[in-house]
Amino acid sequence: MNTRLVVNYLSQIVLYFSLVFTIPLAAAIRYHEDVYAFAIPMAVCAFLGSIVYVISKPESDVAKYKEGYAIVGIGWLLIAIAGSIPYVYYSISPVDAFFEAMSGFTTTGATIIDRIEDLPKSLLLWRSLTQWLGGMGIVVLFVAIFPTLAKKSETLLQAEVPGLKVEKIKPRLKDTALRLYATYMLLTVLEIVLLYILGMSLYDAVNHTFTTLSTGGFSTHTESIAYFNSPAIEFVIFIFMILGGMNFVLIYLLLKGQTKFLRDTEFRFYMAILLLAGAIMTAINLERFELGESLRYSFFQVASIMTTTGYTTFDFDTWSDSARLLLLMLMFVGGSTGSTGGGIKVVRIYLLTVYSLGQILKSAEPRTARIVRLNDEVVDKETLHNITAFFTLYVLIFVLSTFLVSLTGLDMISSISAVSATINNVGPGLGAVGAAESYSSLSATAKLILAFNMWIGRLELFTVLSLFIPSFWRERW
Amino acid sequence: MNTRLVVNYLSQIVLYFSLVFTIPLAAAIRYHEDVYAFAIPMAVCAFLGSIVYVISKPESDVAKYKEGYAIVGIGWLLIAIAGSIPYVYYSISPVDAFFEAMSGFTTTGATIIDRIEDLPKSLLLWRSLTQWLGGMGIVVLFVAIFPTLAKKSETLLQAEVPGLKVEKIKPRLKDTALRLYATYMLLTVLEIVLLYILGMSLYDAVNHTFTTLSTGGFSTHTESIAYFNSPAIEFVIFIFMILGGMNFVLIYLLLKGQTKFLRDTEFRFYMAILLLAGAIMTAINLERFELGESLRYSFFQVASIMTTTGYTTFDFDTWSDSARLLLLMLMFVGGSTGSTGGGIKVVRIYLLTVYSLGQILKSAEPRTARIVRLNDEVVDKETLHNITAFFTLYVLIFVLSTFLVSLTGLDMISSISAVSATINNVGPGLGAVGAAESYSSLSATAKLILAFNMWIGRLELFTVLSLFIPSFWRERW
Ligand SMILES: [K+]
Ligand SMILES: [K+]
Repeated sequence: MNTRLVVNYLSQIVLYFSLVFTIPLAAAIRYHEDVYAFAIPMAVCAFLGSIVYVISKPESDVAKYKEGYAIVGIGWLLIAIAGSIPYVYYSISPVDAFFEAMSGFTTTGATIIDRIEDLPKSLLLWRSLTQWLGGMGIVVLFVAIFPTLAKKSETLLQAEVPGLKVEKIKPRLKDTALRLYATYMLLTVLEIVLLYILGMSLYDAVNHTFTTLSTGGFSTHTESIAYFNSPAIEFVIFIFMILGGMNFVLIYLLLKGQTKFLRDTEFRFYMAILLLAGAIMTAINLERFELGESLRYSFFQVASIMTTTGYTTFDFDTWSDSARLLLLMLMFVGGSTGSTGGGIKVVRIYLLTVYSLGQILKSAEPRTARIVRLNDEVVDKETLHNITAFFTLYVLIFVLSTFLVSLTGLDMISSISAVSATINNVGPGLGAVGAAESYSSLSATAKLILAFNMWIGRLELFTVLSLFIPSFWRERW
Repeated sequence: MNTRLVVNYLSQIVLYFSLVFTIPLAAAIRYHEDVYAFAIPMAVCAFLGSIVYVISKPESDVAKYKEGYAIVGIGWLLIAIAGSIPYVYYSISPVDAFFEAMSGFTTTGATIIDRIEDLPKSLLLWRSLTQWLGGMGIVVLFVAIFPTLAKKSETLLQAEVPGLKVEKIKPRLKDTALRLYATYMLLTVLEIVLLYILGMSLYDAVNHTFTTLSTGGFSTHTESIAYFNSPAIEFVIFIFMILGGMNFVLIYLLLKGQTKFLRDTEFRFYMAILLLAGAIMTAINLERFELGESLRYSFFQVASIMTTTGYTTFDFDTWSDSARLLLLMLMFVGGSTGSTGGGIKVVRIYLLTVYSLGQILKSAEPRTARIVRLNDEVVDKETLHNITAFFTLYVLIFVLSTFLVSLTGLDMISSISAVSATINNVGPGLGAVGAAESYSSLSATAKLILAFNMWIGRLELFTVLSLFIPSFWRERW
């Protein structure tokens, strides 16, 4: 482990991260709110970042997977800590502030704030911005913006971008990152304009765009999207949530007019699940809505939960248990590879299903060779085993976390759904952490366990869990 | 697929199965109850079995895995259908009767009978007997008893005995089966004697022995083991439940004085989980019991649920949510390979944990070779992949079944626990299917889904699921 290199990169991340506070600072000036809430963390990050940067000049610039893992894993934690300072400034307890910041940067959207509207506008903008930054991946942004980091750390993107492998549009990593970044920016501008045209204030349009594309789900209103009570706004957000849950490489290619990528297996499976689940949910909800309303609320909620955005237009916790179970299942499906969505990811669910069904026949006829294909290409065994191990670990952590959270006194459904909503980076759960509730009533221990789940869920388990294995830190192994 | 051979074996199974009805028939005579309840199914099985046997003489005696799968999978179903006739005779609806019979032969112990004591003694003995037969595996019994079947169908035992591989004590399959059968018989006699000495009636002692060793859990009392209110009886049952959840090969070797097998990894992991879970449960339950009571009720319930027996000495559904979640988790662990217990099985949980933890490091340092060992031997990759595929499929079926059951109108916790209690062959669940309730209130659809879960859970998924793949039935593939 090249520790000096890791520390040096982390100091650069913190240093550059200080610049991000200029945006809420500007908002604070504009809205005549307290500037110190952002000036203080900005100064702290700039000061600490530059000192550590100077004293930690690495002797070697050799970076392998594990250096990448350490930078991404610890970097995310440091940013969540730095990002919680504005909340602490506004008298929110450190644990709550850390929970809210981690929830932001991991694009989870679980909140400990009961009455959103009570907070200053600059703080709410900061809250939305954390998701927008987290969405595309802070590290990807840094890779794209600062070429010195990009050149040396090919592993960063591999560790960062959720999913299997970044499809190679161009061999150069920096180009890829820049293109994804441009795609993200373009969609951001587009959604702001659309929401503004449809009647949102510019402030609300910016905030909700920040938290739609990042599949984050923070809103500036306690009622979430239900506040606007506008089918048109809901439709635009519905479309952009689905875009947020798509592979951004695919969106980039679509924007360039290359529609053949719509035959992508993951995209088709993603759309198929969305449509099927939406139809089932609509049917289930016919017991309480007439058809038009059922379509409206069901499809929005299914897309919101499956893309792991977490917006609500209706308190789904009042729906039937089968509807709530369906939402719980969709949380684990999540978004596509290379999207901002969380969860296990569509391609993994697809491969797991095909692989395990194939094993049924293989067990009855051992000599059969079962081959799993994706987009007409054979998926190599190493990838399949990585995915099954990932899934196993995901389930084990989910089960263990649920039990630990329940030990803090939370009831069963709330515990199950709180862990589901955090490890999958969804946000709202059921029961005590339902759509009409917040995470404020939970104990500090429960909040820390859930924040841990957001962190490992967002970084695809392995990145963060590696850090807890002693041999990971050995010089050679 | 050698269909004629499959049909011929199935007819033999049904034919020999008719003999089993002599036991409840004798009980009916002894207790002056209706003999037709058992004479009728006996005649039906003998008649149909012998006719089909005669007309289905196979041309070839070649049996491979899939013939073994078909015989075991369909055989179990036929026996459950035949075994439900006595219930139907006593005016229980066909779906309920099928549920109860499948619950018996799969050693699940979920019941649709609300007041057990209302049933005739001969029928209750039949009910317990189905579990005793199912426990060691009807097919194993047939393999052991009827040499003609044993010689030709080495695959039968491999498809039948739960778990990975039957440890080879002797190369000859028949010998192995006979030894396991003798072990089972010996433990049966021993438990009957012990329970009788401790004050149970002979009738109760026989019934509860039948359902302890088989980790079945049916009782002759609605209150289950709580009825006896005897710490001594609870202790004996506690020990025999743990024996029932152990590998019978291990018990056989222990009975022969070979104690070195206590170093077996699975056995140690099994005991470690039991002790740890028992200790945690005792601690959780200190909020409602004093220490002595908490130890008594907690350890019994943990052993009962983890070995998938399902007896109760206390209505655990009144315990805290973390206690109930712990029980739910233990259901999935289940018994050991080659035991009568259900669930995923201890060795699989062990290998899944070790394997997936190893993959964390492998992802950070791809060149590392991660080797998984069991009893100092390297576990081959094929086995590991089979286990991960099994686990994936198990989770997928669990989730899908839970959703389907909830669609019949059952609430979330009841749906989750009903599927957990049936796919893992445990018996009692939580909520509407809790320890103090029965499955009688569920819809017919829900009962059939749950019976299906018992069936596939008992036969380790692949055996039964193969039957639903069209290409399985093709002549060559
Ligand atoms: K979210
Ligand atoms: K059972």
